[in-house]
Amino acid sequence: MLNINQKKIQLLDCTLRDGGYYTNWDFDENLVEQYFKTINNLPVEFIEIGYRSKPQQKYEGAFFYLPQYLLEFCKKQSSKKLVIILNEKEFSPDDVEEVLKPCAGMVYMVRLAVAPHRLKNALKIAEAVKKMGFLISLNLMYASKWKEDLYTSADLKNFQGILDYFYVVDSYGGMLPSEVTMTFNKLKESLSVDLGFHGHNNIEMALINSLTAMEAGASIIDATVCGMGRGAGNLKTELLLSLLHRKYKVPVDFDILNELVEEFLKLKEEHKWGTNLPYMLSGAFSLPQNTVLGRVKKRFFSLNSIVKEVSEETTPPPENCHFPVFTPVKQYQKALVVGGGNTPQEFSGAVREYLKHNPKICIIHSSSRNVNSFLDLPNHQFHCLSGKEILRLEKTLSPENYDKRFFLISSETGETIPADFSSKYKQFTKVLKKGHFQKKYELSTTAMAMDIADSLDVQEIMFTGYDGYAGQVTREQLELFEENQEIFDDAEEHGLTIFSLTPTMYKLSSKSIFSIL
Amino acid sequence: MLNINQKKIQLLDCTLRDGGYYTNWDFDENLVEQYFKTINNLPVEFIEIGYRSKPQQKYEGAFFYLPQYLLEFCKKQSSKKLVIILNEKEFSPDDVEEVLKPCAGMVYMVRLAVAPHRLKNALKIAEAVKKMGFLISLNLMYASKWKEDLYTSADLKNFQGILDYFYVVDSYGGMLPSEVTMTFNKLKESLSVDLGFHGHNNIEMALINSLTAMEAGASIIDATVCGMGRGAGNLKTELLLSLLHRKYKVPVDFDILNELVEEFLKLKEEHKWGTNLPYMLSGAFSLPQNTVLGRVKKRFFSLNSIVKEVSEETTPPPENCHFPVFTPVKQYQKALVVGGGNTPQEFSGAVREYLKHNPKICIIHSSSRNVNSFLDLPNHQFHCLSGKEILRLEKTLSPENYDKRFFLISSETGETIPADFSSKYKQFTKVLKKGHFQKKYELSTTAMAMDIADSLDVQEIMFTGYDGYAGQVTREQLELFEENQEIFDDAEEHGLTIFSLTPTMYKLSSKSIFSIL
Repeated sequence: MLNINQKKIQLLDCTLRDGGYYTNWDFDENLVEQYFKTINNLPVEFIEIGYRSKPQQKYEGAFFYLPQYLLEFCKKQSSKKLVIILNEKEFSPDDVEEVLKPCAGMVYMVRLAVAPHRLKNALKIAEAVKKMGFLISLNLMYASKWKEDLYTSADLKNFQGILDYFYVVDSYGGMLPSEVTMTFNKLKESLSVDLGFHGHNNIEMALINSLTAMEAGASIIDATVCGMGRGAGNLKTELLLSLLHRKYKVPVDFDILNELVEEFLKLKEEHKWGTNLPYMLSGAFSLPQNTVLGRVKKRFFSLNSIVKEVSEETTPPPENCHFPVFTPVKQYQKALVVGGGNTPQEFSGAVREYLKHNPKICIIHSSSRNVNSFLDLPNHQFHCLSGKEILRLEKTLSPENYDKRFFLISSETGETIPADFSSKYKQFTKVLKKGHFQKKYELSTTAMAMDIADSLDVQEIMFTGYDGYAGQVTREQLELFEENQEIFDDAEEHGLTIFSLTPTMYKLSSKSIFSIL
Repeated sequence: MLNINQKKIQLLDCTLRDGGYYTNWDFDENLVEQYFKTINNLPVEFIEIGYRSKPQQKYEGAFFYLPQYLLEFCKKQSSKKLVIILNEKEFSPDDVEEVLKPCAGMVYMVRLAVAPHRLKNALKIAEAVKKMGFLISLNLMYASKWKEDLYTSADLKNFQGILDYFYVVDSYGGMLPSEVTMTFNKLKESLSVDLGFHGHNNIEMALINSLTAMEAGASIIDATVCGMGRGAGNLKTELLLSLLHRKYKVPVDFDILNELVEEFLKLKEEHKWGTNLPYMLSGAFSLPQNTVLGRVKKRFFSLNSIVKEVSEETTPPPENCHFPVFTPVKQYQKALVVGGGNTPQEFSGAVREYLKHNPKICIIHSSSRNVNSFLDLPNHQFHCLSGKEILRLEKTLSPENYDKRFFLISSETGETIPADFSSKYKQFTKVLKKGHFQKKYELSTTAMAMDIADSLDVQEIMFTGYDGYAGQVTREQLELFEENQEIFDDAEEHGLTIFSLTPTMYKLSSKSIFSIL
């Protein structure tokens, strides 16, 4: 417990819990030992070591489940009070006893991560946790989006007398200090309980917001080493301690801290958390970080279109709906879907030869990357308009040499087509009504291509440029790969005949381009 | 000019100027073109393109001198108002005309970077600049250390009527928002002139400080792309624009901005600006960034010792002075100085053989890295105590097997010996009075070693472990290399006989260890 300006302040380090988002909650054992040894020697009161969770459909590592042996290991390593967190929406009050039984005698406090609309369920869970003898903290998420009626709601007031701590969680990293002060002032009127603050750093406000929260009445503050944490990351433990040492003479061993920081910086090199322009925008507009990052990194959406979408005060009908609806003319036996991989260029001689001799095959470009290789062919060509692909396409096309071979297909709910582009190509642009695939894989251009092909009633859908990713893949590439694979599996179940003409790492039937020439 | 809350706000991007600290003011031409093209399309009023400077003793690149052809290039590329900055202390008022002549018709505003104690000289320069028809801004540095009497001083008030802008420059990146508000309030009482803010990001306050400055009356704000700038860097242009767009609907093309950001992120990978624990401490304590970083990265000083030194409210005599003064016993003909390179281990067979057969040669360890290889030898051994070397040494030594062969030599003004260590080794530790070398190269352990050897009146000083650095060297390694070279040159001028026994990249006489066995 630190005594700061006559107020008692406690620090909680949640590096293993919040940092786990970047490592699937697996950490090297030596690093974990060094972590505990270091935090034991720092003015930190609590260490949050991870989640307790129900089994998930995908792999998550040790600190997501905290099995008994690991709890014992942590308890042995640490001289601080251990904390775990539960994702409230995963649990019913009846689950509590079983999930927390292994924590008895090891864990000092249980935190509940809760969305505002689920306070009712959270109350029952909190009561069950409290009954088992743990301290209980409610970590209420999305603080930058809290509504005025939250503060006076019975849902909130019912927690009075049950909670040991109530945390303001700035999930989007979007709060400004003035908003933090306001939030704490309102909370103090509604609840008589120790308050905490958990900041994210999208717009680099984590430190000033935490200092502001302390001034506004917070008595417990979260931080993580090097800010390791979901999305843009958290308040950096080393930054908070530097300031507390400077302002309040809180004793800190900076050398032992720096040794730990150096180790986590190596992890940061690998996983690259921290803020960037998409995260800044998600913070500034209080958007879920994955939404923005997913659209930008995976789909190559334009930032302007995302910002435009979220800036609108009201929600007008998507602008793409102003384009005439795409009415498929069912004149093609076969379609070749061209993705963004290298094979369309590596095999361009053979692929072009094939298309030239089969001018009735239509081409569907799910990416703009390879459109150049096919522009001069007589075949009809459909361009899926999405994200940055539109801008890329614009560099290749020009309205003058645009002719009836080309069809620009936009998506009902996909990204808004920039005004510039749509004014130039208005007469060629159609909007695709969502079909089977787009209904399931909303933002995918592969799904768009499949819906186009499906609506054209082609007999065979061929692929090139769906190569898969060699070597190091990013998380976004992996997700995209898995999603495309699902679409292919789905297409086969759906009764479509699909195969690749060029080498592919997907589980997808193949037919060599050379065998059909 | 932006209209924000009925106030006119102007933005100034100084990426090429402040970012130049990381590239010696050289930038790739394509990047510069992209930079201008992008900023031309953003709501930025001014672009500061670099310094005009007198010729320096060391290499600095294009944007440090801005020769005429480059000014013309920038003028052609940019649709914004161009700005340059002068380092006030380099110039006298008489220089102004010559240095600014090529700027006529190209540059709109000249900024003067000034330290508070040099306001008098700055006034004359400002007048000369103004006379030539440029807008003139005074950028007063070190705001976190400004004294109360600055605001009422005639030195400041004399600028009234001359300046177009007065900038608060948070050189140490150490200000808190409350201090920004206070500073602006006091300035508004003293000066009637448009105010600006130039923030650094050591403690991640650059954005909130800039927003706070705007509220407190600043009408012009500096930023750089990706925060590229000296030390921990500046306010990020993309972060500021995200917030201004969000809060005040300032129009921003985020896609063109993001393309530029992506390019600068590549430079960041290479040059690694941004904050870290040493920079955080230099911000928190308002220390010159180079002082802290130099000590940590180059000398391996411990952070605790730096923080302790700067935290003391008063300045007590350096603790090392409590040790008895080192009184050299002049009994050695020769000394072997062992540095931190690899050769003492690579040649340890030969070097040990030589020392074993010449037990009257004393060993002076200027680094702790290789002490282990020589601990068992009969030779007297002097350990230079400095920085982290002390902690490393402690891992090797233990008081029990410490004997009269060993001498621990601390430095008068070097880093404080940690209490732990000094209590254990008190009886063996002496403090070295600064000699010729330490007076010139204050913090260098090579200088310490030379002073020890010099005071022992040895006839020959031999070296091993001064290998130089192969492959990629860091800036700190390069500086250390240059400094050691200077010490060697100085030693020869000083009449000392010095040579290396093992391969070295220094310009230093050599005598193979094998030739003297």
